[in-house]
Amino acid sequence: MTAPVATPSIQTLTQRHEADWQAYCQHDFVRQLAAGTLPAAAFRHYLKQDYLFLVHFARAWGLAVYKSRNIHELRQGCDSLKAIVDLEMQLHVDYCRQWGISEAELATLPEATQTMAYTRYVLDAGLRGDLLDLHVALAPCLIGYADIAVWLNAQRFTVRGPDNPYEAWLAMYISPEFQAAAQQERLWLNAQMADLPPRRLDELARLFQDATRLEIDFWQMGLDAA
Amino acid sequence: MTAPVATPSIQTLTQRHEADWQAYCQHDFVRQLAAGTLPAAAFRHYLKQDYLFLVHFARAWGLAVYKSRNIHELRQGCDSLKAIVDLEMQLHVDYCRQWGISEAELATLPEATQTMAYTRYVLDAGLRGDLLDLHVALAPCLIGYADIAVWLNAQRFTVRGPDNPYEAWLAMYISPEFQAAAQQERLWLNAQMADLPPRRLDELARLFQDATRLEIDFWQMGLDAA
Amino acid sequence: MTAPVATPSIQTLTQRHEADWQAYCQHDFVRQLAAGTLPAAAFRHYLKQDYLFLVHFARAWGLAVYKSRNIHELRQGCDSLKAIVDLEMQLHVDYCRQWGISEAELATLPEATQTMAYTRYVLDAGLRGDLLDLHVALAPCLIGYADIAVWLNAQRFTVRGPDNPYEAWLAMYISPEFQAAAQQERLWLNAQMADLPPRRLDELARLFQDATRLEIDFWQMGLDAA
Amino acid sequence: MTAPVATPSIQTLTQRHEADWQAYCQHDFVRQLAAGTLPAAAFRHYLKQDYLFLVHFARAWGLAVYKSRNIHELRQGCDSLKAIVDLEMQLHVDYCRQWGISEAELATLPEATQTMAYTRYVLDAGLRGDLLDLHVALAPCLIGYADIAVWLNAQRFTVRGPDNPYEAWLAMYISPEFQAAAQQERLWLNAQMADLPPRRLDELARLFQDATRLEIDFWQMGLDAA
Repeated sequence: MTAPVATPSIQTLTQRHEADWQAYCQHDFVRQLAAGTLPAAAFRHYLKQDYLFLVHFARAWGLAVYKSRNIHELRQGCDSLKAIVDLEMQLHVDYCRQWGISEAELATLPEATQTMAYTRYVLDAGLRGDLLDLHVALAPCLIGYADIAVWLNAQRFTVRGPDNPYEAWLAMYISPEFQAAAQQERLWLNAQMADLPPRRLDELARLFQDATRLEIDFWQMGLDAA
Repeated sequence: MTAPVATPSIQTLTQRHEADWQAYCQHDFVRQLAAGTLPAAAFRHYLKQDYLFLVHFARAWGLAVYKSRNIHELRQGCDSLKAIVDLEMQLHVDYCRQWGISEAELATLPEATQTMAYTRYVLDAGLRGDLLDLHVALAPCLIGYADIAVWLNAQRFTVRGPDNPYEAWLAMYISPEFQAAAQQERLWLNAQMADLPPRRLDELARLFQDATRLEIDFWQMGLDAA
Repeated sequence: MTAPVATPSIQTLTQRHEADWQAYCQHDFVRQLAAGTLPAAAFRHYLKQDYLFLVHFARAWGLAVYKSRNIHELRQGCDSLKAIVDLEMQLHVDYCRQWGISEAELATLPEATQTMAYTRYVLDAGLRGDLLDLHVALAPCLIGYADIAVWLNAQRFTVRGPDNPYEAWLAMYISPEFQAAAQQERLWLNAQMADLPPRRLDELARLFQDATRLEIDFWQMGLDAA
Repeated sequence: MTAPVATPSIQTLTQRHEADWQAYCQHDFVRQLAAGTLPAAAFRHYLKQDYLFLVHFARAWGLAVYKSRNIHELRQGCDSLKAIVDLEMQLHVDYCRQWGISEAELATLPEATQTMAYTRYVLDAGLRGDLLDLHVALAPCLIGYADIAVWLNAQRFTVRGPDNPYEAWLAMYISPEFQAAAQQERLWLNAQMADLPPRRLDELARLFQDATRLEIDFWQMGLDAA
């Protein structure tokens, strides 16, 4: 008796590359952040590069709009783009200011290799492949941050509230709004992946693993800056 | 004594291809529309294909977001995209309904050759070239509709008000909001073009002429449908 | 008892859109060409626009190289590109000269709407989708010309040899080299399509139908020029 | 009296970012390579990643073909692509074999972050901008290797001939064929840049600096592997 083959989903990808996924989701950077022990210099470096990341993330959603095959995909890409440009970027600028990083500084930051590597990898994945390739390359970011927030929130070492200087970060990604956006993305990915043949899943798994490894490098870049 | 060379601008393009520009801006389709004598079948065919045009126009602004080189261009592309997806598309769907064209019909329309030709030409111009190439290929649409509305509004044959079945169309493109958007685009184009060398202007002029001729085909397609 | 579902292949596409496929493959333009009765003006117009088509066709294979996911796809795209740039374009230029069209004339030709429509549609299909989308949008050209040559060669109205002014055209597309290239493309397409889910086949069928209709317009453009 | 402004050229870029350019062209990796003292492990790691680099470099020339605006640019891109796919890749595979790296190993190599960063940066630069942006992002590679070979060849520490295990590498890049290809690229870049306004030069200089820094990272990756 053979085991039934599970319908492919985003979980297929996280399970196939479980070691990388855990190395990313439970990285020392986020553990220390949740415990409130992360050096401020590490966080500041991360915050700055994350701003540059957001700019290219917005470009990626612009690309998603271009690659849309119907009006639903068009609206989906447009909504994600608006969430970044109209909301997240401003939040990020405000948050940076609280950490002593001015908007003028953000505008002239040199881009770290790790930022270039991840962002350009995503954009190239989207242009080389189709809309699903683009979404899968973005998944470690959107789905990953949601998973990380849930996992951190359940750990004993995590400090919530005013005693943790990174409380605002934790609060943002555990917020119902962010979790709902991630869940919507999971459902879309699952619907897209459900009927895919193994060969196609292999391609997506490769993208997912690469992007996950580039996210690990991004966390490590933060730690190394301290 | 040689005449001073004018600073290049959008006017450089309309003047260099004045015959095509006039053939487009003063086409029989818009003359009859302004006079209220355009056959309803011609207008309906135009309305339907214009909906498909809008979808690809939105894709073009998504592409503009992807091609942005700084935060200002990113916001510019995002704002234009929002104007189409959140506003114009809904207006268009509502307007189509008034002309007896349901949203269901719009969703399954076959795309006319003329629609394919213009929209794909613009998208390819944007991907083959840079952000300015994309804007110039879009200019006959955005700048052109504004110019057309102003010109029509000043003609003696034009009928404004409830006696013209196409009053809503005329009112939309002569509206201060649409005219302001077109003016903003003109200013951006002029700023981008001011210091360009002749060789680059020749490339842009070629794109502008091609796009203008494809717009003429689009009007003609409407007339031919009646 | 239900009929077994056939493995998807390029035949799935030609059968699903059989009316369009026949209208293209058995178009009056090629019938008259094979009978030797096609007006020379029609053929000359076709030849000129086909040169412009070839330029964008070469761009499409450059795009295929960019979109390659492995070394095999890279070589496939590169070989097709070389066949066009190093071989077909020169043949085309030589052939045009025999019909009184100089290389200088080819270099400054205005591009017909039908040429723009088909070429830019293919390029956009390739950038919006993945490598398979690009190949499917190109299939009516590569596979279609091979099918057309075989079909024409078997018709009683076809005149082969020096009595037909279009003999060189017929000879080229019925040649073992061209037929082998088309067959190789068929096999690659079939291998790519074999395990695709119905939803994906629907997307490809849409592209295939659009491209076929744009090829019909291209033949008709030739006839209309006479 | 003001100094005359020099016509912009590739030298404008290398001079504007002279510190980065020197850090790249005179990096310890190439110094040790020329002296024959580079650890074999460093060279092997570089060789492997350089193979992956070549694959994406070929994709970049495919993209250049797509982005061509005329038949000359089309042939230029096609020739560069052929040089890589038909010649350099095979040379590289042969060379790797001599260093104990099999083609099978090359086919399954994990891609280093530094390789991803540089290659995807180049591809995105080409898609975001125009053909010149793409060439400028590639310049540190093509022009740089030629400059490096000339500089190394003139240094006292450089060991040529059978006593240097890296003689084949030095011989390849100092060869008249490679130098001629680089010179041809320099002339094309200079012709493209000659009439550009300062604003455009700033954009290109930014790309050039980023790409140069990513090349430095690539050398450093080799050293760090030993």
